[in-house]
Amino acid sequence: MPTLLVIEVSPRFDYSTSRKLTAVFVEKWKAANPGGRVVVRDLVKTDLPFVDLPWIAGAFTPSDTHSPESRAAIKVSDDLVAELKAADRIVIGTPMYNFSIPARLKAYIDHVVRVGVTVTADNKGLLTGKSADIILASGGDYSSGSPVEKYNLASGYLRQVLAFIGITDVNIVPAPRAVAGAYGETAVERLAGAVEAAVERKLSAPALVTA
Amino acid sequence: MPTLLVIEVSPRFDYSTSRKLTAVFVEKWKAANPGGRVVVRDLVKTDLPFVDLPWIAGAFTPSDTHSPESRAAIKVSDDLVAELKAADRIVIGTPMYNFSIPARLKAYIDHVVRVGVTVTADNKGLLTGKSADIILASGGDYSSGSPVEKYNLASGYLRQVLAFIGITDVNIVPAPRAVAGAYGETAVERLAGAVEAAVERKLSAPALVTA
Repeated sequence: MPTLLVIEVSPRFDYSTSRKLTAVFVEKWKAANPGGRVVVRDLVKTDLPFVDLPWIAGAFTPSDTHSPESRAAIKVSDDLVAELKAADRIVIGTPMYNFSIPARLKAYIDHVVRVGVTVTADNKGLLTGKSADIILASGGDYSSGSPVEKYNLASGYLRQVLAFIGITDVNIVPAPRAVAGAYGETAVERLAGAVEAAVERKLSAPALVTA
Repeated sequence: MPTLLVIEVSPRFDYSTSRKLTAVFVEKWKAANPGGRVVVRDLVKTDLPFVDLPWIAGAFTPSDTHSPESRAAIKVSDDLVAELKAADRIVIGTPMYNFSIPARLKAYIDHVVRVGVTVTADNKGLLTGKSADIILASGGDYSSGSPVEKYNLASGYLRQVLAFIGITDVNIVPAPRAVAGAYGETAVERLAGAVEAAVERKLSAPALVTA
């Protein structure tokens, strides 16, 4: 039974472009995978502590030596990693904040990138055999060929860090405000085709611009 | 009276390379500015909520229309911005996490980059006349000329986002583990020269490698 993990990052909920489009993704994926399981990891509803000293101690020492503080800190990471490992397909709906990913998504990444768990000590990614799509809502239009394309440091970062843990099949669907509307009013109308093409990995579809 | 703002990011405290080197920076700066004021913003000891809906509402509407939730959310940002504005010189001591800045530092950036406050609506940075130094501790050696240099997405990101709010004079002192030691044991011995040269902006000093 294939599993889709939906990672929601936007705190705007009903006003969120990325959430409107992950909903399109989920519907299309369910139609294509009638027996499939959908797991939602809503980072806005998740307690995501920053990496601290107990976390570091927990991540770099054997679990039977952990202090209660390290055990608690590393459990957050272990649970998020288990969920990610169980997924065959991942879709991340996120806004761009200040040319990069929101701190909330970086906090998630800092939990799931772990030596010996998701990447080996000699830099081999362990989460192989998965594919990921990123719906990237942004104020500016950083699409391929745009004059400000190079200021988008979110796409390249996500590709690099996901590849590091073994997720190399990554597709990005840009959802700039000029296309989606300030509150995503026209997101579904204008971008559902690109999102549906992403589900089917029909990435040469003309509606899909990758950034 | 010149003011130095010291932004600490590492949760490793006594075991932290970047903290050992910001201490060197502060001592050198104090010696050069006997009447100067040093303000420490320790992000590990700061409550740094992620951007949420009340924050967004607060940042994009006039303050006299704010709900109590928005007022509280935006006060965190206002206070951090006021502190940053009051500084003439900034030093950020930070580790690299997963090729970029820690979520904790991104959470700070998401608070201080604000349209109408630190950058105009037409993208002019408002925090001009300041300079910043970044002491960047990392596991790998991403220094200029290293074979993995391009995987360092922290330096370029910090330069871009600081320039966006008007801080264009940015110097980066790399402190890779191979030089500084795993717990910063040899950081002071080997990198104090580079840090002191940075304070004096003697950036052509041979000891200083910028990344």
